[in-house]
Amino acid sequence: MKLLHTADWHIGRTLNGYSLLDEQEAAFKQILAIALAEKVDGIVIAGDIYDRAVPSTDAVTSLDHMLQAINIEHHLPIYAIAGNHDGAKRLNYGREWLAYTNFHLNTLLAEAFTPIETPEAQIFMLPFFDPIDARVYYQQQGLPEKQVKAIHTINDAMQLVLADLTAQFDPTKRHLLITHFTVTPKADDDLELTSETTSKVGGLATLTTDLFSDFDYVMLGHIHTRLASPDPDRIRYSGSPVKFNVKEANPKFHGKGVEIITITPDDITHEFKPIQPKTDLVSLKAPWDTLLDPEFYQQQPLKQAWFAITVQDFDRSKHLNVRAQLEQIYGTIVELDYETHHQAAMMNHAQALDTLSPDAIVGQFFNDITGQPLSKTQQQLVDQIFVNLRKED
Amino acid sequence: MKLLHTADWHIGRTLNGYSLLDEQEAAFKQILAIALAEKVDGIVIAGDIYDRAVPSTDAVTSLDHMLQAINIEHHLPIYAIAGNHDGAKRLNYGREWLAYTNFHLNTLLAEAFTPIETPEAQIFMLPFFDPIDARVYYQQQGLPEKQVKAIHTINDAMQLVLADLTAQFDPTKRHLLITHFTVTPKADDDLELTSETTSKVGGLATLTTDLFSDFDYVMLGHIHTRLASPDPDRIRYSGSPVKFNVKEANPKFHGKGVEIITITPDDITHEFKPIQPKTDLVSLKAPWDTLLDPEFYQQQPLKQAWFAITVQDFDRSKHLNVRAQLEQIYGTIVELDYETHHQAAMMNHAQALDTLSPDAIVGQFFNDITGQPLSKTQQQLVDQIFVNLRKED
Repeated sequence: MKLLHTADWHIGRTLNGYSLLDEQEAAFKQILAIALAEKVDGIVIAGDIYDRAVPSTDAVTSLDHMLQAINIEHHLPIYAIAGNHDGAKRLNYGREWLAYTNFHLNTLLAEAFTPIETPEAQIFMLPFFDPIDARVYYQQQGLPEKQVKAIHTINDAMQLVLADLTAQFDPTKRHLLITHFTVTPKADDDLELTSETTSKVGGLATLTTDLFSDFDYVMLGHIHTRLASPDPDRIRYSGSPVKFNVKEANPKFHGKGVEIITITPDDITHEFKPIQPKTDLVSLKAPWDTLLDPEFYQQQPLKQAWFAITVQDFDRSKHLNVRAQLEQIYGTIVELDYETHHQAAMMNHAQALDTLSPDAIVGQFFNDITGQPLSKTQQQLVDQIFVNLRKED
Repeated sequence: MKLLHTADWHIGRTLNGYSLLDEQEAAFKQILAIALAEKVDGIVIAGDIYDRAVPSTDAVTSLDHMLQAINIEHHLPIYAIAGNHDGAKRLNYGREWLAYTNFHLNTLLAEAFTPIETPEAQIFMLPFFDPIDARVYYQQQGLPEKQVKAIHTINDAMQLVLADLTAQFDPTKRHLLITHFTVTPKADDDLELTSETTSKVGGLATLTTDLFSDFDYVMLGHIHTRLASPDPDRIRYSGSPVKFNVKEANPKFHGKGVEIITITPDDITHEFKPIQPKTDLVSLKAPWDTLLDPEFYQQQPLKQAWFAITVQDFDRSKHLNVRAQLEQIYGTIVELDYETHHQAAMMNHAQALDTLSPDAIVGQFFNDITGQPLSKTQQQLVDQIFVNLRKED
């Protein structure tokens, strides 16, 4: 049995106002082509299908066409769950009809407790939920009030949920889990992550790999890079198929794609399959003269990529129409930042601020921002303000 | 063959801020019960399924459960189209899957040209569209530019569309149409209607019954009362199943329900089946003392209905907590209006305004609102203002 594992499509997302829909549709075509070439038995979408609870009409139409191509046109089963970005109840619409063509969709916690059975595996589909969802669910299940009230963190909730899932294990089959949370190696939650995870969204971010030890393989969504996979062999993020953030232009995050999971009675293996961006995201940081030097810019994928540019050592007073000049050379600039040498200097002396007097801090700040010291008149004004303030105390 | 004809569910609608979802769910249960008792072969929903293009999550969930009950639980076919209140593209989501269980859904004009074939009938499902939709569609169909540009009104568009529908007629079958427009008897578009139709929504409101003469029966949505049916035997509105407007508390609009359409080779008949409101809507107009008189109010369905109350001959200065006093007797008051004897008087002399001087109009207005004439000082102030205004001219 072979599954294609993808997640975090975030259909409808924008990058600083630029629609990513074309990019997402191009990535989707590659996902479908990989699925067909690999002859997989189904496509797993591990949550955050949409970027927001109430997606735009274009996003709804686009997703509908993607899902049709997979499930109606090519008859491939879909195993999809809701992530924290999806509107769980809204995404649930039509679920009963989808199931007729093996489009399995779980968006609500209560739906997670019936695995999809294949001859060789039980596929458990656990959508994103928060501790309150778990309280409501277990209250409805008749769990004693005291135990319900003891559910405070996502960890508390997950222990109950996983016990109810594993109770249904068929020992003759492999046990797969699809879910959408931050999972970290035990006793290590300091990973640098690219999702918008906050401690609030996931409850305490303390789901660790040991919780999932009963499963043979866990397909995760939520973190947008597979490099964050908390167990390289058994508990993995596929990452998003598309770069969503200028930070991902960094080579560290290069290599978007999907994973092919091959399940045999003896083994479960995963293999990464890359997806080529239609429009790449390139981050540049250089001084103004370098950015305008043909020797520099002719090495860039001009007008083919999206650029995030930080201009170093920049003196605003010397240049006009900075964005327009850069766009003429580079094409689309999705992010434009300036780093003055004063800013760089400020970073360096920031820790010395504690030792400076208030008027000296103002002088330093003025100098950092404008590149000029305060004039005598300005210095006198600042001094006077602080004198007056002290009088008021 | 028997069909249940309903329309204008407007799921998610509110009445002056009061949710109608309970009312709509109660009506739905009766619709389903009627369908089962009558052993119909399908349920027609002739548009305005939702109240708005982006319905609330509760509305989405509620509709999903209704449609499931009909189509998944009871295996009844659904023939549904989008109305002007529905978001056509958004409602289209999942359409391909719905069709597997004979849930036929058309939300876009392009989908209208393939009828659903039953052994005895062709069911044409034409969703709401506007002249621009028709231009886009016919441009895509390769209609000459000149003809495309000649589509200005809904009448222009409808003639083209209906010609394309009737071109597909199978002469051995009955021809049924489901659509969502204002249709009036020929040369009569002055009917008093309860929909929010404006000439903009439907283009020129000039679709007349003669346009539809090729169809054996037309099931309409858009107007919320079946009394507006433009041809009592052949072209009918089912009306909405629920009262949406205080105006509908008027006995004229009593009698919400659905229609059962029976199609035989010889005849097509329709029969009205009433739906009982869960919470009725009662409109009262009476003087304050009457409203508080037990002999009057004990004849009302106190605390069981929603009330729209107009207090006649009302002097605001004499009463406090009017709403609270009335609510204590009547229960929910969804609309509370006041009609002072001054207002009534104002209506009467409104047409005399042309003959009054500006200062006299102000004096009259003050008297109408407060029940008191202007004091001498006030009169002098008004006079002075008009004198000053004339000086500025």
